[in-house]
Amino acid sequence: MPIPKPIFNPPFNVIRVSHVEFGVSDLERSRAFYADCLGYAVTATYKDAIHLRAIEERNHHSIILKKADAKARALGFKIGSEEDLDRAKHWFEKKGLPAKFVEVPHQGRTLHASDPLGMPLEFYFSMDQADSLLQKYGEHRGARIQRIDHVNCFTPDVQASVDFYTELGFRATEYTETEDADPKLWAVWMHRKGNVHDLAFTNGYGPKLHHIGVWTATPMDILNICDVMATTGFLKNMERGPGRHGISNAFFLYVRDPDGHRVELFTSDYLTADPDHAPVRWTLRDPQRQTLWGHPAPQSWFEEGSEFPGVAVREPALKAQPIVAR
Amino acid sequence: MPIPKPIFNPPFNVIRVSHVEFGVSDLERSRAFYADCLGYAVTATYKDAIHLRAIEERNHHSIILKKADAKARALGFKIGSEEDLDRAKHWFEKKGLPAKFVEVPHQGRTLHASDPLGMPLEFYFSMDQADSLLQKYGEHRGARIQRIDHVNCFTPDVQASVDFYTELGFRATEYTETEDADPKLWAVWMHRKGNVHDLAFTNGYGPKLHHIGVWTATPMDILNICDVMATTGFLKNMERGPGRHGISNAFFLYVRDPDGHRVELFTSDYLTADPDHAPVRWTLRDPQRQTLWGHPAPQSWFEEGSEFPGVAVREPALKAQPIVAR
Amino acid sequence: MPIPKPIFNPPFNVIRVSHVEFGVSDLERSRAFYADCLGYAVTATYKDAIHLRAIEERNHHSIILKKADAKARALGFKIGSEEDLDRAKHWFEKKGLPAKFVEVPHQGRTLHASDPLGMPLEFYFSMDQADSLLQKYGEHRGARIQRIDHVNCFTPDVQASVDFYTELGFRATEYTETEDADPKLWAVWMHRKGNVHDLAFTNGYGPKLHHIGVWTATPMDILNICDVMATTGFLKNMERGPGRHGISNAFFLYVRDPDGHRVELFTSDYLTADPDHAPVRWTLRDPQRQTLWGHPAPQSWFEEGSEFPGVAVREPALKAQPIVAR
Amino acid sequence: MPIPKPIFNPPFNVIRVSHVEFGVSDLERSRAFYADCLGYAVTATYKDAIHLRAIEERNHHSIILKKADAKARALGFKIGSEEDLDRAKHWFEKKGLPAKFVEVPHQGRTLHASDPLGMPLEFYFSMDQADSLLQKYGEHRGARIQRIDHVNCFTPDVQASVDFYTELGFRATEYTETEDADPKLWAVWMHRKGNVHDLAFTNGYGPKLHHIGVWTATPMDILNICDVMATTGFLKNMERGPGRHGISNAFFLYVRDPDGHRVELFTSDYLTADPDHAPVRWTLRDPQRQTLWGHPAPQSWFEEGSEFPGVAVREPALKAQPIVAR
Repeated sequence: MPIPKPIFNPPFNVIRVSHVEFGVSDLERSRAFYADCLGYAVTATYKDAIHLRAIEERNHHSIILKKADAKARALGFKIGSEEDLDRAKHWFEKKGLPAKFVEVPHQGRTLHASDPLGMPLEFYFSMDQADSLLQKYGEHRGARIQRIDHVNCFTPDVQASVDFYTELGFRATEYTETEDADPKLWAVWMHRKGNVHDLAFTNGYGPKLHHIGVWTATPMDILNICDVMATTGFLKNMERGPGRHGISNAFFLYVRDPDGHRVELFTSDYLTADPDHAPVRWTLRDPQRQTLWGHPAPQSWFEEGSEFPGVAVREPALKAQPIVAR
Repeated sequence: MPIPKPIFNPPFNVIRVSHVEFGVSDLERSRAFYADCLGYAVTATYKDAIHLRAIEERNHHSIILKKADAKARALGFKIGSEEDLDRAKHWFEKKGLPAKFVEVPHQGRTLHASDPLGMPLEFYFSMDQADSLLQKYGEHRGARIQRIDHVNCFTPDVQASVDFYTELGFRATEYTETEDADPKLWAVWMHRKGNVHDLAFTNGYGPKLHHIGVWTATPMDILNICDVMATTGFLKNMERGPGRHGISNAFFLYVRDPDGHRVELFTSDYLTADPDHAPVRWTLRDPQRQTLWGHPAPQSWFEEGSEFPGVAVREPALKAQPIVAR
Repeated sequence: MPIPKPIFNPPFNVIRVSHVEFGVSDLERSRAFYADCLGYAVTATYKDAIHLRAIEERNHHSIILKKADAKARALGFKIGSEEDLDRAKHWFEKKGLPAKFVEVPHQGRTLHASDPLGMPLEFYFSMDQADSLLQKYGEHRGARIQRIDHVNCFTPDVQASVDFYTELGFRATEYTETEDADPKLWAVWMHRKGNVHDLAFTNGYGPKLHHIGVWTATPMDILNICDVMATTGFLKNMERGPGRHGISNAFFLYVRDPDGHRVELFTSDYLTADPDHAPVRWTLRDPQRQTLWGHPAPQSWFEEGSEFPGVAVREPALKAQPIVAR
Repeated sequence: MPIPKPIFNPPFNVIRVSHVEFGVSDLERSRAFYADCLGYAVTATYKDAIHLRAIEERNHHSIILKKADAKARALGFKIGSEEDLDRAKHWFEKKGLPAKFVEVPHQGRTLHASDPLGMPLEFYFSMDQADSLLQKYGEHRGARIQRIDHVNCFTPDVQASVDFYTELGFRATEYTETEDADPKLWAVWMHRKGNVHDLAFTNGYGPKLHHIGVWTATPMDILNICDVMATTGFLKNMERGPGRHGISNAFFLYVRDPDGHRVELFTSDYLTADPDHAPVRWTLRDPQRQTLWGHPAPQSWFEEGSEFPGVAVREPALKAQPIVAR
């Protein structure tokens, strides 16, 4: 069984995924998408960047739009303390992986590091705080997105990625494997904060960011944003859904921002906080792992993702074709 | 049994209740309530009036706010044709009731009439048409109210009111009666358009308008407007609910506009189009007729309503006290 | 413009579509689908038939399952009075169309007739009444379907069908036409009861019943039945959706019963009662008329339908191919 | 400021609240309430006990109904490991508090302990696992409750309770204090699992259990159970709501089981996992902390709770009267 055992005394304490930075070609066009259509609040606007947060978020930003190449520039994780930051730096260095402190506006000490496959990571403990808009109901717009939930990545070597993040304290909740005599991990969902995932990996050309997942309170918010997008010029940005994933039980909608970065609006997963919560196994031959209701995903969903700046994309280890329609 | 038999060849063809005109003391304050908070679209603004319509309405207005005394100035009904207008005038005149043609902006020929208790009625066939906003999802706001549904009135003589509107072709769907040996009608719900009501009457000091009812697609829209009102300065305008009426099965919220006019946001009633659809009987002793879930209504809900200009309020025929809490 | 003018003094008064009868090969298998899965209430069970009604329906049946060939055996319409029945018989006979009184269990006098294309129609005024289950919330199951709403048919000659039912008093609310210099009607939605339709026609091999439409209170009921069907052995019965039609604004799910009869679960259309409510025009080149959100329908949805017993299927008049995906 | 600083290296690792045991006088009557009405799954039935779990729960039980006095017999917490159990026993003993290992069916080693006010606690690491019913949608019933979320207790000394559980690693998310020159804690919400609470305390005659909170996916599930309870003989069991708490943002309904134990069905709180997540302060003079929408709670809600067996109820430290209605 290729899912490694979870570790409960990790080298440093990752609390949760907390933000991403997207390179975008036209800040105003992206603001129209994220703020005017999806309903994100704008916390700060700079000449070359817009900082966004969702309804319940007190963190200054969970999405940074940066005037830059259309790449995903950092996957940001909140960690438990300033001491954890030093432990993190030490740990990456011991592994011979890049790790250095950088200045990031609105964040305290911030560590930039890379995982063994080259994915850029950003760790910090403190961030400027903003008002929660959760009870400013009059300001809710669009999909009324409440918070960032997870990032999902293509990796050329799922086993290597999962082994690395397991050492870091991430715990698997669901996984897909091939049906060989010697089964291989095809995709894994891993968490720190106690729901299905903070971080997921799927076999594919990578490393690339497949999507960020953002949480809404109910499926009605997702149906509503479908109607809004379809009638306000964002029809072509709707890529997949709405539907129900078998994996994670998520009710989902996948949309693409004007630069192609993918956002999953989702709700309806479950609590996984128990240390002995056993991961759920799915096989590539079960199409309901993808969509419980039998809808195929478009080819783009399997192939496209946001590259990371300066990180070479490699061919995936596994060549099997998943079965994706009933 | 005091519910009169329905009439299927009425003297003229009333299609449905279609609009009301409210006297308000401060147009901007009322606009903030109806447009900014509840989400009504403003079709036209005049120096002394604002015309509002709901999301799916093509009629130019379903609510007119008029700078005037805080009274309900007209209950508007769409009728089937211009010929029906003439038939209506003739019928009212034959009964010795007031009826005259008046000029009303954005409406075709318009007849002002009064019922035997003095309630001011307005009949018309044609009205200026506006765009339906039903599929302009990006413009939906507040409670996303779709359309006007009914008007509900206090009358000092329920039997007289019901008899009159039955002659006019309205058909009873539900009613409450006292439990005497000789039961009396306490309240009646009557329709033309095929759902629970266009027009309802309750025993009380009247004639007065108790409320207009406006329809939302789902209970979620009503829960949302509760959150919005409670956090944007309209907490005191929330009078009753949300809750479920036993009568009509409506999921409801009653709100008061800045001048005290009452609006019921509601959803979840049912089809009553069949000519042999038998009315449902409730008794004053069953508190679930009021709220299925057992919540009492505030005293204001039983006592307050919008008067009609120049119409004397009379003492009600029945003195019984309804049972209103579990 | 090929949409005929509505007629307001029809030869007899059709209230609404009220029921259908489906031939099914295995009554128990069909009961499992309609009652156990979708949640229909069983009003009566016979050796060769099961009578079903939805939550708010007081009519004894809105669907009859009959042990017989997998065909649609009758489209049932409630009419306004016993006198209307006689007028109906007279009218069909005058047109040289079949019309005879038959005995149907649980119905009063019942007229079987055919339209000019051969579609079997059933008219009646009175039917045995059953309890409404609307407020028996503890008994609601599955999709909590409230009532039958419409029937939708393939016709080889849309113009002929629409002309016929216009004479009968049906009024068009939305329509699709080709974009020729001389545009032709491709599909038309027509109503009697005041919402988007009781009856719709689409160009295609016919006459055949495309589907019956049944109404749920909210989209959440439709999402829920997706989850239920997908996990209780009915995944293959889910044909299309959930999604939003541009036409009618319906939130929809199409399912197929064990014999292939198609049922649309839907909600979210609008009021059309006004006599001057102008029909909405769509063109074959606008894919959003089909699905606002851009999802293509499967080929089966365009090609398959329930035949009527003994009625020859003819080639459609129009050969144009609609555009069905973004 | 009376909220103590959170501790991030607690003496042992509490994961979350996981179950309660209720003494009930009639097991069948209680089964009807929890299983037939609310929709709990029965995992095991014994002569003197019924074990229940909610839809997503893999734990064998989150509620145990025991034939016994109508008291709350244990508040159960999942902890991080078997080693944590030994650390827990040691820690309680060092404080001079009761702590002993007991046998509990379907659980591994189980520690019974008491807090300084006498509240009975139960700690364990392993429990028999059952199937998650999350994707067995055909079996969902009633309120479709997904999981236990929290327990809420009356304490005669809020400061003492909060100090104790802070030492144990619980972290405050919201609190109410009096408005004295020297403000006192009136109520505190504390968590381990990263949402608003696992455990809350309010000033009052205690220690007593005020309620357990159980989580539903959407407000629609709560509206539905209102309808079901009100029409299946459980109207009198509905104590308060539905409504929105200001504190925690919960959409709530409070119900009483046949023995008076209180259950809050709730949804809509938020993520609190960040170690620097600052608690929200409310004052006793703000009625919106109780209900955002202004509804008063019934007197029973402020006064009644489940006692713990053999634990004396003491008078509360604070005498102030909260303001509970607008």
